[in-house]
Amino acid sequence: MKKLNFKNDYSNIAHPFVLERLKEHLDDSFNGYGLDEASDLARKKVKDLIQSDADVHFLIGGTSANKIAIAHALRPYEAVIAVESGHIAVHETGAIEQTGHKILTVKPVNGKIVPEDIVKTVELYQDEHGVVPRLVYISDATEIGTVYTKDELTRISQVCREHNLYLYIDGARLSNALVSPKNDLTLPEIARLSDMFTIGGTKNGLLMGEVLIVTNPALKPYVRHSVKQNGGMLAKGFLLGLQFQVFFQDNLFLAMARHANVLALNLQEKLVGLGYTLASISDTNQIFVNISWDKYNTLKDVCAFEVWNKADDYVTVRFVTSFATKAEDVEKLIEIMKN
Amino acid sequence: MKKLNFKNDYSNIAHPFVLERLKEHLDDSFNGYGLDEASDLARKKVKDLIQSDADVHFLIGGTSANKIAIAHALRPYEAVIAVESGHIAVHETGAIEQTGHKILTVKPVNGKIVPEDIVKTVELYQDEHGVVPRLVYISDATEIGTVYTKDELTRISQVCREHNLYLYIDGARLSNALVSPKNDLTLPEIARLSDMFTIGGTKNGLLMGEVLIVTNPALKPYVRHSVKQNGGMLAKGFLLGLQFQVFFQDNLFLAMARHANVLALNLQEKLVGLGYTLASISDTNQIFVNISWDKYNTLKDVCAFEVWNKADDYVTVRFVTSFATKAEDVEKLIEIMKN
Amino acid sequence: MKKLNFKNDYSNIAHPFVLERLKEHLDDSFNGYGLDEASDLARKKVKDLIQSDADVHFLIGGTSANKIAIAHALRPYEAVIAVESGHIAVHETGAIEQTGHKILTVKPVNGKIVPEDIVKTVELYQDEHGVVPRLVYISDATEIGTVYTKDELTRISQVCREHNLYLYIDGARLSNALVSPKNDLTLPEIARLSDMFTIGGTKNGLLMGEVLIVTNPALKPYVRHSVKQNGGMLAKGFLLGLQFQVFFQDNLFLAMARHANVLALNLQEKLVGLGYTLASISDTNQIFVNISWDKYNTLKDVCAFEVWNKADDYVTVRFVTSFATKAEDVEKLIEIMKN
Amino acid sequence: MKKLNFKNDYSNIAHPFVLERLKEHLDDSFNGYGLDEASDLARKKVKDLIQSDADVHFLIGGTSANKIAIAHALRPYEAVIAVESGHIAVHETGAIEQTGHKILTVKPVNGKIVPEDIVKTVELYQDEHGVVPRLVYISDATEIGTVYTKDELTRISQVCREHNLYLYIDGARLSNALVSPKNDLTLPEIARLSDMFTIGGTKNGLLMGEVLIVTNPALKPYVRHSVKQNGGMLAKGFLLGLQFQVFFQDNLFLAMARHANVLALNLQEKLVGLGYTLASISDTNQIFVNISWDKYNTLKDVCAFEVWNKADDYVTVRFVTSFATKAEDVEKLIEIMKN
Repeated sequence: MKKLNFKNDYSNIAHPFVLERLKEHLDDSFNGYGLDEASDLARKKVKDLIQSDADVHFLIGGTSANKIAIAHALRPYEAVIAVESGHIAVHETGAIEQTGHKILTVKPVNGKIVPEDIVKTVELYQDEHGVVPRLVYISDATEIGTVYTKDELTRISQVCREHNLYLYIDGARLSNALVSPKNDLTLPEIARLSDMFTIGGTKNGLLMGEVLIVTNPALKPYVRHSVKQNGGMLAKGFLLGLQFQVFFQDNLFLAMARHANVLALNLQEKLVGLGYTLASISDTNQIFVNISWDKYNTLKDVCAFEVWNKADDYVTVRFVTSFATKAEDVEKLIEIMKN
Repeated sequence: MKKLNFKNDYSNIAHPFVLERLKEHLDDSFNGYGLDEASDLARKKVKDLIQSDADVHFLIGGTSANKIAIAHALRPYEAVIAVESGHIAVHETGAIEQTGHKILTVKPVNGKIVPEDIVKTVELYQDEHGVVPRLVYISDATEIGTVYTKDELTRISQVCREHNLYLYIDGARLSNALVSPKNDLTLPEIARLSDMFTIGGTKNGLLMGEVLIVTNPALKPYVRHSVKQNGGMLAKGFLLGLQFQVFFQDNLFLAMARHANVLALNLQEKLVGLGYTLASISDTNQIFVNISWDKYNTLKDVCAFEVWNKADDYVTVRFVTSFATKAEDVEKLIEIMKN
Repeated sequence: MKKLNFKNDYSNIAHPFVLERLKEHLDDSFNGYGLDEASDLARKKVKDLIQSDADVHFLIGGTSANKIAIAHALRPYEAVIAVESGHIAVHETGAIEQTGHKILTVKPVNGKIVPEDIVKTVELYQDEHGVVPRLVYISDATEIGTVYTKDELTRISQVCREHNLYLYIDGARLSNALVSPKNDLTLPEIARLSDMFTIGGTKNGLLMGEVLIVTNPALKPYVRHSVKQNGGMLAKGFLLGLQFQVFFQDNLFLAMARHANVLALNLQEKLVGLGYTLASISDTNQIFVNISWDKYNTLKDVCAFEVWNKADDYVTVRFVTSFATKAEDVEKLIEIMKN
Repeated sequence: MKKLNFKNDYSNIAHPFVLERLKEHLDDSFNGYGLDEASDLARKKVKDLIQSDADVHFLIGGTSANKIAIAHALRPYEAVIAVESGHIAVHETGAIEQTGHKILTVKPVNGKIVPEDIVKTVELYQDEHGVVPRLVYISDATEIGTVYTKDELTRISQVCREHNLYLYIDGARLSNALVSPKNDLTLPEIARLSDMFTIGGTKNGLLMGEVLIVTNPALKPYVRHSVKQNGGMLAKGFLLGLQFQVFFQDNLFLAMARHANVLALNLQEKLVGLGYTLASISDTNQIFVNISWDKYNTLKDVCAFEVWNKADDYVTVRFVTSFATKAEDVEKLIEIMKN
């Protein structure tokens, strides 16, 4: 029997519509480096969605997008504020530091940054013997599947503007956040409250691709130079433009994310009903469940997942769903977890 | 009428086989980050082809591959030697310098580096007030479509080994070089004579992708860390593995490159027959032709191409062919050039 | 009345012997960049003291020395482990990150790093999505005036060697550590247990200057290149050589440090006797005393010191002594603190 | 017999007044990091001299100053334009590239940059595949002892302002330039025509030290952060302030430079009279003379100098004078050269 797959949301090729769209264009030729009409159309679609005359860049991957955005924004002595669990702080092999910038970390609360900690960090760094905090990095959805509310993001945005900090949102799973039951934010609001943000395609049904949206006029010039310098410019940029056309058409991106969320949150609820405890309560497509070592040892042979934390008497495992997850696989997992 | 397209070799989606292969796997799931069986199979294929137990990494694009390979190899005070026309020296927005390394340039002869200039450069930098030349960068095919012969590469390799220099070959168009009438090098020889090299897929029929091959054992450890840190690790790395399986199957990569070369060299020969002069004589799929300003002004409306150089009384234009170029389009271009 | 000065240990020109030595050589000329006989003599003296054939480099300042040593030792994806209060982590404006490297911080215990935390950090970073911990940075004396014992340093050294980590000791105040009542380490032992360390002159009576001692043969090549590239090579390097001759002559460096330690520890003891609490117990020439806000407000007009921490109901202040501090000034301060 | 010394202008301790001044302050204490009254006084003196409300920073050395100024000014994708012989391009171990920036070189004419070459370079880099030229680096006096005239500097400044380029002048030997017979520039004019410049003390009688003067308001913020991050902030910054007080007092800096220039230019004239040819005609304190190999072999035993270039049938040697060079030593050298 094939293993169940709850390992991550980037283990399948792509939504079938994506390949179909590429196939339709097999005989066409395009301009290089994203300066093509397909990318222009996709860019226009993004601007309509966010209701802003932002600059829109289609990039290859999440680490690359974070690195480009942050390196582009900062002067050498400037630093990022992020939670300790932030993707840039732990899972990107020092990609931000490679560009010369320190990441100042604060404790997350429920996966999210607390405005007061931003202020405290700014206050700690007041002279030339320390770095200058200049950009706040948050992820929405967060690394543990929670989402920011409109109140929370508004407060963070205010704090950032009061303290001359850019607000950058890593939206690798922004689609999932947008359709979370806990979400009350819209794309235009996100655009208005932040200075730059991304919308991830890699983890939501595309072959690959992230949209980098730059709303702050001060950050717009020369982004393409930063993209190229950091190795993030695809010669066949039109592949990204074509894919994001599919992504945004008829809100496919939301449909795919909703599919994933519903399955994961259903799974989370059922597992709690079965008596499992959660390491944290998720609002999106990643859930974090504590299981016994015995359960772990049998489960790992029939299901792919990631181990999040190993304790003496239990293991926290992560189950992730995606556009490609089948409802019947969730049912199968629940059955297995019952025993 | 649709414009003829001789602009570059990355303006089409991909060879149809590539999309077909992806479609076959729409229902499969894969491990992330290139640690999947499809990538393993492709890696094995590469090692068989080059007859070496090299480390094989599938990367996203050319600039990214160059940046990763060079940053990985060098200590902070070490520098690259390249020709002035080298891709890293002029067309990558300072990507190498961004990683902290100087590029020491020498004059190309026929697009190629001259071993004596390598030695002279090494001799110039003998103390701690200058950088330490440590890596020679060459492109095969070169930026002007010429190729290195076995004698030339052997001599360069010798000079590098005598002077403690790594030899890195940017093979963005290595397929075209391998099937050039001027080529007498094999992949195993290239692997043996260099320390690292790439085989480009982006400019030869894939959606995107470059193979980075590391033959020098000293350079093998931690390459995946360098890939990730530089934003070059694709979450869906299996997309590269699957594509490169197609690329190497039944030598499709050579067939595609041969198709492109034959059309370009035929075009070059015909244009010379028509009385045009060449800015340089190409051996592969890019040719560089001098045309009058009058010709330029009529041509640009019916044909896409790049302007290489503008002189007072003529323009050097670049015509590039690819796997997707049709023989009839070459005929059409020749007809246009006759008038 | 002139203010008492307990602000730091670098507020005076230099020990008089230093200027005398320079004056003796006013008519001499020297080779540049540290390649002079005066520097050679000082280098020989250092090697005799540490009983090791280390490479010895005279550098300008502490941040510069830390930056040079760490950037020299690390590959791009490698990181430093340090305590949160480590000088490089908080007081050097991201100088280490500027060279591309992340600093992984752990909690200090009594200002010092705990070997178990080194091991835990190494275990956390096991794949290419994280950095590679490669160098442990410690300060002796620490930033709060404590010192490492032979047992402690031996254990740290063992852990480093077991886990392929370089051990680098920032010895900006190593002289003070060496003559601390708590110290049981000798210079030869420090040299043997670490891979690189510094002995600071700036904070112990010289105009400026730090000795960087590289004992690990793997780290010896090209240090001068790293010094120059990082702007740390003094054209008149002989000024450092001459100063360090004075520094080490007849153990002047120990005499100066002992003078400072004795005064500070006497002050610490007296203040405790007067009922003051300490933020931490110092073993060297910096002490950290909690005083009321009232006391603070009167003290700051008659004495220069640094504020270390502001709490609601008290202030932690730092008093520092140096070679130039007069015993009578300590008496005066005690008198003031009595009231 | 002691060798004659014409090797460089940084082989002597310092002008006696410098040590005297330091000695006067042996009993004083100062604030750290350049935030002291002595430095304030020296800063005021500089502003008076240049008749500008510039920001004035006292730095340690030339490479460090160049690195700090350029890293401070540039965004990651921005580059420097300099002549091939520029100090930053060849003699600083890639210090600029270490901060991530490319140096675009042009041919010097008489050691100096040609405005037309600046324009051509800007025109070459027009899209995101190349860097953005943003700062022009020149040295005055140049690396071969020539000086910029007011006409030349004015034209360069105009070109820079027309093309949105910062103009940075490396004034390691600016004192020598100012008192050159060929000079018609004043300090206020230099301040007005450039965006940042330095006045070197290391090569003109101080122990060490360069003044970095930032006149462009856009470049003023956070320079101290850049200084600290690059390891260029001296804890005992007051040592620089005190020295520069001496330097500027009664125009000592000009007197020292004039002494050096007069001796060198006299030597140059005499050697030409003796039939020697010059590699280039100097206007300041470095001269470049072609001598036979025979002469070289006898000369090197009695005189210290640097070899600038080795040809088959002659050697170009550099003779440098300084504040410490004695007229009688010049006479002795002339005598030797006669034979």
